[in-house]
Amino acid sequence: MYKACTQGDLDYIKSIVAEPLNVYWKEEISEDYSHDELGGISNYPDILVKVTTTEEISQIVKYAYEHTIAVVARGSGTGLVGASVPLHNGIMLDTTSMNKIIELDEENLTLTVEPGVMLMEIGKYVEEKNFFYPPDPGEKSATIGGNISTNAGGMRAVKYGVTRDYVRALEVVLPNGDIAEFGGKVVKNSSGYSLKDLIIGSEGTLGIITKATLKLLPLPKFSISLLIPFEDIDGAIEAVPQIIKSRVIPTAIEFMQREVILSSEEFLGKTFPDSSSEAYLLLTFDGNTREQVEHDYAIVADLCIDLGALDAYIVDTEERMESVWSARGAFLEAIHASTDEMDECDVVVPRHRIADFIKYTKELQEEYSIRIPSFGHAGDGNLHIYICRDGLDQETWDKKLKEIFDKMYKRADEYGGMVSGEHGIGYAKKEYLFDQLCDNNINIMKGIKQVFDPKNILNPGKVCQ
Amino acid sequence: MYKACTQGDLDYIKSIVAEPLNVYWKEEISEDYSHDELGGISNYPDILVKVTTTEEISQIVKYAYEHTIAVVARGSGTGLVGASVPLHNGIMLDTTSMNKIIELDEENLTLTVEPGVMLMEIGKYVEEKNFFYPPDPGEKSATIGGNISTNAGGMRAVKYGVTRDYVRALEVVLPNGDIAEFGGKVVKNSSGYSLKDLIIGSEGTLGIITKATLKLLPLPKFSISLLIPFEDIDGAIEAVPQIIKSRVIPTAIEFMQREVILSSEEFLGKTFPDSSSEAYLLLTFDGNTREQVEHDYAIVADLCIDLGALDAYIVDTEERMESVWSARGAFLEAIHASTDEMDECDVVVPRHRIADFIKYTKELQEEYSIRIPSFGHAGDGNLHIYICRDGLDQETWDKKLKEIFDKMYKRADEYGGMVSGEHGIGYAKKEYLFDQLCDNNINIMKGIKQVFDPKNILNPGKVCQ
Repeated sequence: MYKACTQGDLDYIKSIVAEPLNVYWKEEISEDYSHDELGGISNYPDILVKVTTTEEISQIVKYAYEHTIAVVARGSGTGLVGASVPLHNGIMLDTTSMNKIIELDEENLTLTVEPGVMLMEIGKYVEEKNFFYPPDPGEKSATIGGNISTNAGGMRAVKYGVTRDYVRALEVVLPNGDIAEFGGKVVKNSSGYSLKDLIIGSEGTLGIITKATLKLLPLPKFSISLLIPFEDIDGAIEAVPQIIKSRVIPTAIEFMQREVILSSEEFLGKTFPDSSSEAYLLLTFDGNTREQVEHDYAIVADLCIDLGALDAYIVDTEERMESVWSARGAFLEAIHASTDEMDECDVVVPRHRIADFIKYTKELQEEYSIRIPSFGHAGDGNLHIYICRDGLDQETWDKKLKEIFDKMYKRADEYGGMVSGEHGIGYAKKEYLFDQLCDNNINIMKGIKQVFDPKNILNPGKVCQ
Repeated sequence: MYKACTQGDLDYIKSIVAEPLNVYWKEEISEDYSHDELGGISNYPDILVKVTTTEEISQIVKYAYEHTIAVVARGSGTGLVGASVPLHNGIMLDTTSMNKIIELDEENLTLTVEPGVMLMEIGKYVEEKNFFYPPDPGEKSATIGGNISTNAGGMRAVKYGVTRDYVRALEVVLPNGDIAEFGGKVVKNSSGYSLKDLIIGSEGTLGIITKATLKLLPLPKFSISLLIPFEDIDGAIEAVPQIIKSRVIPTAIEFMQREVILSSEEFLGKTFPDSSSEAYLLLTFDGNTREQVEHDYAIVADLCIDLGALDAYIVDTEERMESVWSARGAFLEAIHASTDEMDECDVVVPRHRIADFIKYTKELQEEYSIRIPSFGHAGDGNLHIYICRDGLDQETWDKKLKEIFDKMYKRADEYGGMVSGEHGIGYAKKEYLFDQLCDNNINIMKGIKQVFDPKNILNPGKVCQ
């Protein structure tokens, strides 16, 4: 079905790129490129190219299209669903060398970047100039190309929305190798079907993002966090819809449990400000006047105390901020380090069902005698639930994992939730997407893939295939 | 190509709807249904159905699909690009009777509505309960179904974005008559291609919206407007990118010229607070504390004075608010009433090119000796430019209009703008969309239309066809 790459293909690609040393052949390719952060699925590309320009990508893809060679784009490889694993070998395009910030446009409040710029670099660059790129996924070493490809969400989605809300324009290499522009440096757009919004979240299956123009905001002048301990997870989570109803919109509402905090303390070798309670909400408030921020957090602190919170710690010094948020940022790695293997469920449910869903994961934990720590974005209904292998033999692990996943995704569906809030479908969650969506929906997605990519060369076997 | 409707089709449709009196046949159909607010293009449907339920729509569309009858959905008919004109006769579905507000969900901050609810009803309903639906298109009698179909923008886009940003989920009848759900009552979603975002702005060509779940915000507690007179339009418009650079984000930044204000005063028989200057910016600021709102408008007022503004009037009484914003709301109708025929250009350009674009329309006004009043959303680069016929004979009018449009859209393209900011493409602007977009882009749109609607029965001849 796909042509396997030959020495001739390698020679051709070396002849068209600016720097032939950026092209790697089979055994020269590092193991890293055979997988992302998802365990259990890996495969090597035949050829790896560390691409440096849009034109290079365009020429390589055109060649691959003519010869029916599979092509997969890869950023930092921090994905959690196997989206960048080259299932059909072929050519992998590593975009991390395309890491230039092209333009900050202060009159239009936009930032134009190459796809390989890391999220942490964007944050640093714009905040030094008092601008703000609101999307805030936990993995700061992810590339912006990867973030756009999964429509990454992150912690500030409660107030500011997700990556989709901050992409004004994309330059994309289509599967036939042509370069297309979708969207523009404009605030409004009603000019035909929104192809830009199709590319966002399409996990590299419809085109390769080679440039992105992002919407910025002015940096809010004040930001304060609140850490609120509760007696148990139910109390913490059940406070969330009440906070939303209070008409105050925090920037972030994260929930965390003691066991995850302890893992993180151990992993980082740092102490969390408080770990004596069973469950916590961590909230942030931002704004342009201190009065407004103080007003907002006071309302929420009082409300939480009324609802049974044990206290409300203000996190306003740089030291405390660092201690709390670095712990929050390390949760995934800490859980990862606490077990031999894990898999993750990234469902999103309507906010008022989060408590029920977490309770259900606790029931499954008991039923299957398996550790299921979780944390996540309580304010936007997006949960990160980890099933930990903890030394189980392969057969038991596979069986338990499948049964637990089946039950969780079924329950999320019953609650009006979706399969993925922000990590995408990739390879690992396709089955659950197929289970959830009706045939029309899946067939339209397959049809769209066919329209963009009639020879199915771009990241085949992912999302809806 | 399409089957003309027969008595048999009429009888069948009458037999499946709840109320046969809601079905109209040819000569019984009011002239209103043959056009929208765009002049120069009209055609009648064979059958008009005032639909009342999703199931009714589903059954009618299924029948039309089987028999290859064209189907067009219509809301209030306030469109400006002929999108709801039934070019191929067939069946028209009037959704204005599906006007129920289904659910306000305070825990998830969502409002679920039928497609025929008018924008003014949504505003009234949610604001009474201290919630806020930010999109604010000028035409308040438009239906939400129409707003979603054109991705309507409106005045508050500077701060709050456009309709797309406030649609969480859609129920849609597909061209085969099946009912599908896109999106969900969730804040984040990375579960396959965003079909919801394809439907938004697709002007009734991919599916018929039968239910929408909208995102709400808490209603800001304070809102104040500023009316800022300038000596000329250049001074007014050139202040806009400077305002944006000041790191204050007004809710709205509208520009208006004396001639349009005078038309509006005459049309409404009401006096505008000031009409002695050539050009004005009208700004709104909102927030949850008076201090913040006052802080913001003071910065902008001072900045504008520094940039040469003649004054800065605070519009904070209910009376003044009403006088200013009712005038602003009447601009389109006032220009409409001032001439025998007009056509409109709804381009959007990057904010820093608005001044240049307005200057260019003034040049065209001179060059073609034709009146070209304009007003619009200076803060988001979306201009509404009206070419007024003022009694020209048909041939001269057609010629001048075409030449002026050709030049304007070409210039907008050179400035990195798009054909439509918020009114859509419909029938009238297709040529300019084709001119602007590359072949790949247009072919993908055509392909997507084919995937959704292989028999091309839904609103044929629009957007990309």
